[in-house]
Amino acid sequence: MPKTVDFSVSDLGTCSVRSPLAFSTTAGDAIANYARNEDTILYRAPSGEEGMLEKAGPREMIYFNPAHVHAGIITCGGLCPGLNDVIRAVVRSLWNRYGVQRISGIRYGYKGFLPEHGLSIKNLDPDIVDDIHKIGGSILGSSRGGGERTSDIVDAIERMNLNMLFAIGGDGTQKGALAIADEVERRRLKVAVVGIPKTIDNDLLFVDRSFGFETAVEKASEAVTAAHAEAHSSMNGVGLVKLMGRDSGFIAVHTALATHEVNFLLIPEVRFKLEGKKGLLAQLEKRLERRNHAVIVVAEGAGQDLIVSDPSAVDASGNKRLADIGAWLRDSINSHFKARGVEVNLKYIDPSYMIRSAPACPTDSVYCERLGNNAVHAAMAGKTRVLIGVVNNEFVHLPTGLVVSRRNKVDPEGSLYRDALDATGQPVELYDSQEVDSAR
Amino acid sequence: MPKTVDFSVSDLGTCSVRSPLAFSTTAGDAIANYARNEDTILYRAPSGEEGMLEKAGPREMIYFNPAHVHAGIITCGGLCPGLNDVIRAVVRSLWNRYGVQRISGIRYGYKGFLPEHGLSIKNLDPDIVDDIHKIGGSILGSSRGGGERTSDIVDAIERMNLNMLFAIGGDGTQKGALAIADEVERRRLKVAVVGIPKTIDNDLLFVDRSFGFETAVEKASEAVTAAHAEAHSSMNGVGLVKLMGRDSGFIAVHTALATHEVNFLLIPEVRFKLEGKKGLLAQLEKRLERRNHAVIVVAEGAGQDLIVSDPSAVDASGNKRLADIGAWLRDSINSHFKARGVEVNLKYIDPSYMIRSAPACPTDSVYCERLGNNAVHAAMAGKTRVLIGVVNNEFVHLPTGLVVSRRNKVDPEGSLYRDALDATGQPVELYDSQEVDSAR
Amino acid sequence: MPKTVDFSVSDLGTCSVRSPLAFSTTAGDAIANYARNEDTILYRAPSGEEGMLEKAGPREMIYFNPAHVHAGIITCGGLCPGLNDVIRAVVRSLWNRYGVQRISGIRYGYKGFLPEHGLSIKNLDPDIVDDIHKIGGSILGSSRGGGERTSDIVDAIERMNLNMLFAIGGDGTQKGALAIADEVERRRLKVAVVGIPKTIDNDLLFVDRSFGFETAVEKASEAVTAAHAEAHSSMNGVGLVKLMGRDSGFIAVHTALATHEVNFLLIPEVRFKLEGKKGLLAQLEKRLERRNHAVIVVAEGAGQDLIVSDPSAVDASGNKRLADIGAWLRDSINSHFKARGVEVNLKYIDPSYMIRSAPACPTDSVYCERLGNNAVHAAMAGKTRVLIGVVNNEFVHLPTGLVVSRRNKVDPEGSLYRDALDATGQPVELYDSQEVDSAR
Amino acid sequence: MPKTVDFSVSDLGTCSVRSPLAFSTTAGDAIANYARNEDTILYRAPSGEEGMLEKAGPREMIYFNPAHVHAGIITCGGLCPGLNDVIRAVVRSLWNRYGVQRISGIRYGYKGFLPEHGLSIKNLDPDIVDDIHKIGGSILGSSRGGGERTSDIVDAIERMNLNMLFAIGGDGTQKGALAIADEVERRRLKVAVVGIPKTIDNDLLFVDRSFGFETAVEKASEAVTAAHAEAHSSMNGVGLVKLMGRDSGFIAVHTALATHEVNFLLIPEVRFKLEGKKGLLAQLEKRLERRNHAVIVVAEGAGQDLIVSDPSAVDASGNKRLADIGAWLRDSINSHFKARGVEVNLKYIDPSYMIRSAPACPTDSVYCERLGNNAVHAAMAGKTRVLIGVVNNEFVHLPTGLVVSRRNKVDPEGSLYRDALDATGQPVELYDSQEVDSAR
Repeated sequence: MPKTVDFSVSDLGTCSVRSPLAFSTTAGDAIANYARNEDTILYRAPSGEEGMLEKAGPREMIYFNPAHVHAGIITCGGLCPGLNDVIRAVVRSLWNRYGVQRISGIRYGYKGFLPEHGLSIKNLDPDIVDDIHKIGGSILGSSRGGGERTSDIVDAIERMNLNMLFAIGGDGTQKGALAIADEVERRRLKVAVVGIPKTIDNDLLFVDRSFGFETAVEKASEAVTAAHAEAHSSMNGVGLVKLMGRDSGFIAVHTALATHEVNFLLIPEVRFKLEGKKGLLAQLEKRLERRNHAVIVVAEGAGQDLIVSDPSAVDASGNKRLADIGAWLRDSINSHFKARGVEVNLKYIDPSYMIRSAPACPTDSVYCERLGNNAVHAAMAGKTRVLIGVVNNEFVHLPTGLVVSRRNKVDPEGSLYRDALDATGQPVELYDSQEVDSAR
Repeated sequence: MPKTVDFSVSDLGTCSVRSPLAFSTTAGDAIANYARNEDTILYRAPSGEEGMLEKAGPREMIYFNPAHVHAGIITCGGLCPGLNDVIRAVVRSLWNRYGVQRISGIRYGYKGFLPEHGLSIKNLDPDIVDDIHKIGGSILGSSRGGGERTSDIVDAIERMNLNMLFAIGGDGTQKGALAIADEVERRRLKVAVVGIPKTIDNDLLFVDRSFGFETAVEKASEAVTAAHAEAHSSMNGVGLVKLMGRDSGFIAVHTALATHEVNFLLIPEVRFKLEGKKGLLAQLEKRLERRNHAVIVVAEGAGQDLIVSDPSAVDASGNKRLADIGAWLRDSINSHFKARGVEVNLKYIDPSYMIRSAPACPTDSVYCERLGNNAVHAAMAGKTRVLIGVVNNEFVHLPTGLVVSRRNKVDPEGSLYRDALDATGQPVELYDSQEVDSAR
Repeated sequence: MPKTVDFSVSDLGTCSVRSPLAFSTTAGDAIANYARNEDTILYRAPSGEEGMLEKAGPREMIYFNPAHVHAGIITCGGLCPGLNDVIRAVVRSLWNRYGVQRISGIRYGYKGFLPEHGLSIKNLDPDIVDDIHKIGGSILGSSRGGGERTSDIVDAIERMNLNMLFAIGGDGTQKGALAIADEVERRRLKVAVVGIPKTIDNDLLFVDRSFGFETAVEKASEAVTAAHAEAHSSMNGVGLVKLMGRDSGFIAVHTALATHEVNFLLIPEVRFKLEGKKGLLAQLEKRLERRNHAVIVVAEGAGQDLIVSDPSAVDASGNKRLADIGAWLRDSINSHFKARGVEVNLKYIDPSYMIRSAPACPTDSVYCERLGNNAVHAAMAGKTRVLIGVVNNEFVHLPTGLVVSRRNKVDPEGSLYRDALDATGQPVELYDSQEVDSAR
Repeated sequence: MPKTVDFSVSDLGTCSVRSPLAFSTTAGDAIANYARNEDTILYRAPSGEEGMLEKAGPREMIYFNPAHVHAGIITCGGLCPGLNDVIRAVVRSLWNRYGVQRISGIRYGYKGFLPEHGLSIKNLDPDIVDDIHKIGGSILGSSRGGGERTSDIVDAIERMNLNMLFAIGGDGTQKGALAIADEVERRRLKVAVVGIPKTIDNDLLFVDRSFGFETAVEKASEAVTAAHAEAHSSMNGVGLVKLMGRDSGFIAVHTALATHEVNFLLIPEVRFKLEGKKGLLAQLEKRLERRNHAVIVVAEGAGQDLIVSDPSAVDASGNKRLADIGAWLRDSINSHFKARGVEVNLKYIDPSYMIRSAPACPTDSVYCERLGNNAVHAAMAGKTRVLIGVVNNEFVHLPTGLVVSRRNKVDPEGSLYRDALDATGQPVELYDSQEVDSAR
C-alpha cells in the first residue's frame, strides 16, 4: 500500500492582480492556457509514497503587482551546468513577460547577504544575461554556507525591500530558504521564497531529473572516452575515472550506458570488494588476460566501507572523512599487479571540475529555461516555501519542507542498474557473499 | 473517463530455456533481478487512453537456445542519430550476454532482403561494432520502401534461417514488420519480430521519447545559434531556420527553449498568417523596429495551409505535395520588406541533413543502449510483434499493431508550448481570429 | 629572378612618448623585448616577389599619449570566425596595456559613420568584451559598403575626435581605409588607420594565413562528415557540399585533407567538365559502381565557365552573375543518373552561414589575439595605412596599398593540391584535354 | 653569420621503377607535378643554422616495385592526437595510390617486434582504417622503450621480410629507427626507415610544427575555460591548470593566447619565484584584491629549480626526478593564504590524459594526412634515415640523425612570449633580480 503524502504548497495570500500575460482560460480554443491551482497530477515516488501535485505555470490572477516587485536571485554551493541558464530564464521572464524591472543578483550565495561582505549586489536585466548561457559557472558567483544566518539574511531582505527570492541550490540552500521563509512570515513580510533544486548527482527523491545532470553525463563521457583510448592503446592499459556521486551513482551509471566503454562500474549503492575470487582485482586480472585493457568508473561515494578501515582515511585530528576512493583504487590496483610482477599501465582521470563548470547542453538548457519560467510564475502568484520540479514530464510545485533531504538512489535490483550491467558485462556481484558476511 | 486499451503482446510460445544471464529472482538481495511478464505499469497516454504495460527486461526462462540463434538486423528510412548505437547494443547484448554468434546485418533496409539486390548481408560481431557509435548514419545502410514485399522478405528470412529480426525504423518499417510477423506465423516459422521505433520528430503516441531526438535538438540549436549570430550582426538581420517536423513541432519547440534565441516559432500544430495586423509580417516589422534583428524557426510541416492556395505548390501532374515552407517564408519576407523599401538581411539555414546524420549525444546513447538491450531480451524470450518503448521512465513492451500510425503532437494549450511562448516572447496568436474564420 | 618590392610603411610622425609597457631593450637579459622598426625579415611571396618586411610589435617610443587617445573599431563585410576575438584583443590591449579608456565601436561597419544612420556607437571596455570570444558574429555588427563615402566618414571621425581607427574587413574595407587615411592626411588630422585583413577564403597574397580560416575548415569538415554519413548510408548515396571560395579553393582543399572523406574536389583554380569519358559524371559513375557512395566538395567559384553558357545563369536584366554551382551540380547529377535509370540518393548541403558565424577555434583565437595586440602596438606607434599580417610565423606590418586586391590561389601544380589529390584519389584531370581545347 | 648545415638525406639506391601515380613532369600544364630531389628550399632554423632542404613528395621514379612491398608501421611513446590519422594516411597512400597490399601494424611500439611478446601484428587495409581518425589513441597501441633492442628488431624485420618501416614517435623512437637503419645497412637489407616525428610539446628544432599540437591547445583551452569558470564563480577563486611541456612551454603559451583567460603563465623557459615582492604569491595577492579571481597555467617543466631544493622531490633511492609542479604550486598557494587568514578557493585541474587521447582537430588532421602521404612517397623512393617535417609551409625530408635531440624552446625575448604577456597582463618578471642572483 503506498503511503499518501500531502504535497500542498503555501502561498502569501489572495491573488487579486490580473496577470499581464495574455493566455487563455478556455480549453479548446487552441490558445495556450493559464495553469490553475486545481490542476494536479497523481504522482508515485520511487519510495512508494504518492500524492497529488499542483501543476506549475502562470496563473491568471497573481499576487504581486509587477510594477512594485523587487526580485532577488542567489546561486549557492558547488557549480553545476545550467546555473546561468536558470538565472537568465528568471530575469527574462520577470522583465519581458511580467514587466518587473528591479532584479538583484546577490553575489556569492547567502554570503552576499551578510553584513561582513557588504551586501554584494549585481543588477540584472535582459541585456546582461543575454549570452550567459554560453558560459559555465554562475555569473553571480556561488559559495557554501551562510544560509544558517537567517536573521541577518532577512534583515538584508528587508533593507533591500525584496518581494521574492529565487534560491538556486542544493539541500543546504533549500533548508536555508525554508528558515528564511519562516522568519519572513514571523516578521509579517510579503516575500515569496521559491527554490530551484540543484544537485548534479540527480538524487532528489520527488524530482524526475535535476538540471545539469545530462551535461554532467556528457562531459563525464568525454573523460571515459579518453580513459578508454589510453587503456586501449597500452599493454594492460587500465583507465580509471572518478565521477561525482557522494550518495548515489546516477552519473556513473548513465556514463557507463552512454559510452558503452566501461568494464567495471562502482557506485555507492552496490558493495564490492577488492580481494577474493569474485573481487574487483581478480576480475580485473581476468579481463586484462582476455582483452588486454579495461576501463573502470567509480563514483566518489563508492567503496567507502573499504577505506574506513584504512588508517590513512583518518585525518590529523582523528576525524573520519570521505576518503578519496579514486586515488585509493589507483594505488591498490598498481600495488596488486606490481606484487604479481605484471606491468599494468593505469591512467587515472578526475574530471570533476571540468564537468561542474561546463555550459549546459541543449537538453539541460530546455529544462533550465522551463524551471526558471515556472519559478517566476510561482513567485508572481505568491507561492512560497515551494520548489519547482518535474515529475512524469510535468512541471509541478513541491513543498520545500517535504523534499529537502529526501534522496533518490540507484536501485541495485532495478532496470537501470541491470541495463548498466548489460552494458559493462561485469559480474552481478564483485564480492564473495560469504566473505562479506563474515567481514561484517 | 479514460478509454482502456489492451496493451498485451504476442509471443512465439512457452519459454523453456534457462537464461545464461546470472540475474536474481529474489527481491531484496541487492542483486539485479530478472523482469517478469507479470511486472506491469499503468500508463495513461496524452490521448487519454490508458492500460497496463508489460515491463521490458531479461526473462529468467527464454524461448530460444542461444547456441542455435541466427539474428537479423535492419535499419530503414531516413537517417536518425543513434542508429549505430542501437545496432551496437543489439549485437553486443546478443553476443556478449547471450552467446549468440550468428548475427547478420541486412544492408539498405528491407531492400537488402529482396532478390534483385542479391541479399546484401554484413556479418556482425562485437569487434565490428566496437566504435560505430562515434559515427553518424547507419553502418548497415538504409533505404525507404521494400517492406511491402512481405512474401519475398519472408522467403529470404527462411533461406537465411533467421530466428529473430530487429527492425529499426518508423511507421512504414513497423507496418512491414507486422506483415512479416503475420506471414511468419502463417508459414509456422519461429521468428521473433521486434521493432525499435525510430522517429526523429519524437511524435509517437505511446512512447515518451524517441531515440535521436535530443541529438536533433542539440544540432538544431547549433543552426539557430548561427542564425542568431548572423541576424544579430546585421542591420535588420533576420535568421530563418527550417527544422524537421512534418506533423509535429517537437524539435522546433525544444530548440526554441534550448537556445533561448528564437523570436518566432512556427509549428504544424498552431495556425499562423503572414498578413494582417497580428500576422507574422507585421509582428516581425515591430520586432525589427524595436530590436533590429529577429530569429524565426519553422518546422517543415508548419503553414502548409498558407501555401496550398499557391499554385506553385502543385506539381506537374496536379498533385499536392508538402510545400517548402522555409523557402516560401524566405521569399515572402524578402518581398514584403522590399515592397516597403526596408532593407532586411535574411539568412536562411536548412540544417536537416547535418542533424539527421550526427552521432548520438550521450543522452541519446544511454537510451539507445537500453533500447537495444531490451529488444534483445524481448526477442530471446520469444516476444514478437512488439516494440520497445519508454513510458514514465520505464522500458516496456508495446504491441506493434497498436502503436503504428498513432501520432503525438504538441498541445497548443499545454505547458510545453506555453513555456515556449515564454521563451520566444511571441504573441499567443499570429493571426487575426476574424480573418482566419472568414478565410475558412 | 624575384622582383623586389618596397614594403615600407607610413607613419604619422616622430614617436616621442615613452611606452607604458615595461619591456626590455636589451637582448640577452631573458626579458621580453620591444620591437624596433629596424627589425625586418626577408619575405618571398608565392608570386615570386620579395622584400624586407618590418616586424610588428610594441615600440619603446610611441606616437600617442595614451591618456588622450580615442580609438575607434569597425567590422565590415560578411561574418568570419574570430571577429569578436580581434575586437576583444584590441580593446584589452588598449585599455589594460596602454591605459586608453575611450574606445568606441562603430556599429554596422562604415555605415555606422554615416549621418543617415545617426552615428551608431557602442562604448567598449574590458568588461563588455570579456566573454565575446565565445560567441560568433560581431558584437559591433557588420555591413557591406559605405566605405566609399570617405568625406562623410572623415567628418564623423573629426567630430568624434578619433585618433586611431581599427578597420577589420576585406578588400573593400581596406580600400576604404586607404581613402580615409588619405583624406585624413589632406585634412592634416592625426589619425592612425590600421587594418586587420579579413578573408575567410585565406586568399591574401602577402599573408600566410587569414584569421577564421582554420575554424572555417573545422566547421566545413562537420558538413563533409555529415555528407559522408548520408552518402555511406544510402544505396548510391552522393553527398554534395558547397563551400566558400569565390576565387580560391583553400577551404575546400583543406577540408578534403582534414576529413579524408572527399572523393571529388572541385575548386576555381582547376578546370573540370561534366561530360566526356574523363568528366565528373563518368568518374562519379565509376566510383558508385565500385564503392556505392561518393562525396563531392565544390568551392562556390568552381566551374563558373560551365554555367556561363547556361542561359539560366543570366538574370532578368540580362546581367551575368556568379552562378550557384552547388544547385547546378545537384541538378546535373540527378538528371544524368535519372536519364540512365540509375537511382542515386543525392544529399546537398550548403553550410556557409553555419561556418561564417561560428566562434573561433583555439588555433584562430591565438592568431586573433596576436593580430589585435599587434594592431594596437602599430597604432600607438603612429603607423598608418598599415595592415597586420603573418609571414613565416612572424607578425609584420604590410603597407595597405600593396596588399589590397592581391589574391593568393591554390597552385594546381603545387604540393598542397597534389596532397589533396592523394587524399581524394580523384584523377588528376576531370576533363578530356582535346574536348576542352575544342570547346574554347 | 649563420652556420651552414648539410641536410642531405640517405637513400637505398637508384630508383628504376616508374611510379604508378599519374602526375605530370611538366611545369605550366596546370597538372600536379612530381617532386624532384633537386627541388630544395633554403631554411633558417630558430637556432640560426641554415641549409638546403629537399622537398618531400612523390617521385616519378621510385625504388620499390609496389607489388613486392611489405610495409610495417609502429607508434611509440605517449599518446598524441593524430596518431590514427597518420596511420590511416600511410595505409591509404600505400594501398590506394601505390597498390601496396601487404601492410602490417606492429602492436605496442618496438616491443611488438620482440620475441618475448610473440611478434604482435595487425594486418592493415583501407577498410580497417576507414574511420579510425575519429577515435583517439593509436589502434596499434603504443609503449615506451624496446627500441634499443636493435638486433632483435632487425631479426624480426628480416623474418617478416619488411621493405619499409614507418616509425611514428619521439626522440627515443627516432634514435631507435636510426640504429635499425644502421643495422639494416650492415646486414645489406633493403629496408627504408622513415620517421614521422611525434612531440605533442611542439619542441622539435627543425620542424615548424608537430602534429597533435593544435589539438592539444584546443583541449587545454577547455581545461582553462573550466578553471576560469570555477575561479570566476568563487570568492577569491583561483584556477590552476597544469599542462604538458617538459622542456618547452609552447602548449601553455598558445593556450594562454587562445583562451585570453590566463593571468599567470609559468613555463620552463622563464624563471619565477614564489616569494618576494615581485614573486608569484605577492602578485597573485594583488590580482585577487583587485579582481577577486585568477587563473594560473603552469607547464609541467616550469619551476623545477624551486622544488629541487625540496627533499620531497628526491625519491627513495636518492635520485632526482621531475617534481610535480602542479601539486606543489597548489599546496604552496593554499598554505600561503591560509597563513595569512585569507580564504582562497583553489581548483586544480590536470587534464593531460584527456588532451593526449583526443582525436585530432581538423587543422591537425590536414597535417597528419600530408605527413602520412609524404612519408609513403619517401619510402617508395627508397629514402631512409629520413624524417618528414614542415618548414615555411613546405613538406621536406630531414636527415633523422640531425634532428634527433635538437629541441626548440619558447624564446623569452621573442614576439610569441611577448604577445602572451600582453594576453595575460602579468609582470614581465615574476621574481626580484637581486634575490635571484644572490640565491644562486
